[in-house]
Amino acid sequence: MPTRGYVAHAAKSELVPFEFERRELRPHDVAFDVLFAGICHSDIHQVREEWGPSLFPMVPGHEIIGVVSAVGSESTKFTVGQRIGVGVFVDSCRKCENCRAGMEQYCSEGMTPTYNGYERDHRTIAFGGYSNHFVVDENYAVHVPESLDPAGAAPLLCAGITLYSPLRHWGAGPGKRVGIIGLGGLGHMGLQFAHAMGADTTVFSHSASKAEDAAALGADHFVVTSDPTVLANHELRYDIIINATSADIDLNPYLSLLSLDGTLVIVGLSGVPVQIRQDILLGARRSLAGSMIGGMAEVQEMMDFCGEHNITSWIEVVSAEGINAAYDRTVASDVKYRFVIDASTF
Amino acid sequence: MPTRGYVAHAAKSELVPFEFERRELRPHDVAFDVLFAGICHSDIHQVREEWGPSLFPMVPGHEIIGVVSAVGSESTKFTVGQRIGVGVFVDSCRKCENCRAGMEQYCSEGMTPTYNGYERDHRTIAFGGYSNHFVVDENYAVHVPESLDPAGAAPLLCAGITLYSPLRHWGAGPGKRVGIIGLGGLGHMGLQFAHAMGADTTVFSHSASKAEDAAALGADHFVVTSDPTVLANHELRYDIIINATSADIDLNPYLSLLSLDGTLVIVGLSGVPVQIRQDILLGARRSLAGSMIGGMAEVQEMMDFCGEHNITSWIEVVSAEGINAAYDRTVASDVKYRFVIDASTF
Repeated sequence: MPTRGYVAHAAKSELVPFEFERRELRPHDVAFDVLFAGICHSDIHQVREEWGPSLFPMVPGHEIIGVVSAVGSESTKFTVGQRIGVGVFVDSCRKCENCRAGMEQYCSEGMTPTYNGYERDHRTIAFGGYSNHFVVDENYAVHVPESLDPAGAAPLLCAGITLYSPLRHWGAGPGKRVGIIGLGGLGHMGLQFAHAMGADTTVFSHSASKAEDAAALGADHFVVTSDPTVLANHELRYDIIINATSADIDLNPYLSLLSLDGTLVIVGLSGVPVQIRQDILLGARRSLAGSMIGGMAEVQEMMDFCGEHNITSWIEVVSAEGINAAYDRTVASDVKYRFVIDASTF
Repeated sequence: MPTRGYVAHAAKSELVPFEFERRELRPHDVAFDVLFAGICHSDIHQVREEWGPSLFPMVPGHEIIGVVSAVGSESTKFTVGQRIGVGVFVDSCRKCENCRAGMEQYCSEGMTPTYNGYERDHRTIAFGGYSNHFVVDENYAVHVPESLDPAGAAPLLCAGITLYSPLRHWGAGPGKRVGIIGLGGLGHMGLQFAHAMGADTTVFSHSASKAEDAAALGADHFVVTSDPTVLANHELRYDIIINATSADIDLNPYLSLLSLDGTLVIVGLSGVPVQIRQDILLGARRSLAGSMIGGMAEVQEMMDFCGEHNITSWIEVVSAEGINAAYDRTVASDVKYRFVIDASTF
């Protein structure tokens, strides 16, 4: 299928218009017209090779919302005209213990990424969601509630699930206290989820100016961390704290705020190891854990949860030619809280 | 009660004979004649002020086995002549959430240590188990099965529970794979427990010479880690790995050996922060956790488990005047696997 998108031809290059072919429908495939594609900070890391070597040409984009335009001969999950979403991966081995447990993101062969990698034939470069059409195996796509704003729903596919999954896994809910470090693309999603799950929520932010947004997004408490003594004197204790920043911050003051058996979860990569004080872990059987997006069943669960609670990302819509400027503003944290590309402009 | 023991009068000084008074029995107290007191590496750290300032004069010892000699007016837990054990703490606030949950070791006011601290009056220095008599509140002592060798049972009170508790908490048992880093005082206890719990066990040791002991203690696998490529190429994946060394080792290769949702548990303090690679945590929702001894109910559970499975520490018995030499040998890891002091020699 002839497709128009935006591409980076080499590391650190600007994104430019690109025409390419999407594959013909296989029996279990679904084709869709893209409505919106989110700009994730990880797109920028990969275009700029900040996480190691990348694969070019690269069409980024793994937060994709569209409308089904055709279904494969044996495909039954979607019908033409339905909303559809695709996230960070488009396939996995389907056989390993983790895949069979519905945690394809931890596939022991490695998940098949939506872009910056090869399809399962190990030779076809996968092109991501910065494009007007998409083709995907129906098992790696989710239904998106029609009630949700499709532009605001796009970031759910990565930013959303990245926070939703650990909140569920570590039991956020009534009677639990949840802290979110950083109110940005990830943090503002986690805050909405934790609040909707019934937890008591705190945002830790170095920026006092975000207090109003935090309250609107469901924060019960807001802690300005620019003064380092604030954390040392903070009196609340937390069951779950999620580091929703990718900055190289000292996590030990936050670990100290965990109650017995509390967990601090890392969901992003700062690029440098974290230095952890062992006595803080021992002092209350605390844990430091990592979590990476979610499995397909959980992405669907999150979408349904968002439909029920009317949760979407706070976004700013840009056209295709605005991608490069949006990248620079994302790096500068100058967006509340995610950019989404209008796919009609490709 | 007139008591003879061994004391360090100042930081880093040798231990010398010491006579002092134990308190008269309070209503819920139990008095006992000490049979054996274990030498824990933490005794040495505290005598030598390697963990910060200590309180002197210090009578160390928090692995204490004895025979009850008298009980207080309202004490019902023990009868004269019974075996009794005392571990790392002798009191706690009894009111906080953690105390009420039976996890007195995480008392929010701080547990009352068996030595190197004050009793709950905040002015009486607590003297530990390197002595011929002991007095303790019955709620902070456990029954010790008569079937166990009392000398070998002494290290259960600290080394034992330090490993037993995390193995139980993180679910060691049939179908689980447990790795123990380091076959020493802690590791040789953890290995016996994990094996008795039914887990598949691996010892990671830099010393090939310990393979035979490991097998005798229940190891299913033995991995010599002196060649750093061994871990990178190791094929087994673990649910629980416990770092039973207090050395400053790189934990990342071990974290990488954890399967999905696996946990690496720290139970000792190397004195320097650990450097943790975030991508390893994220890659399989792995956790790094800390654990510190166990609560009174769990210490009793462990003692009963040891009675049932005939588990004790492998020990070398020394007399009181051998304590200083035993300290040096402990620091040099020249003991298989714990020293225990014969309290009849005080």
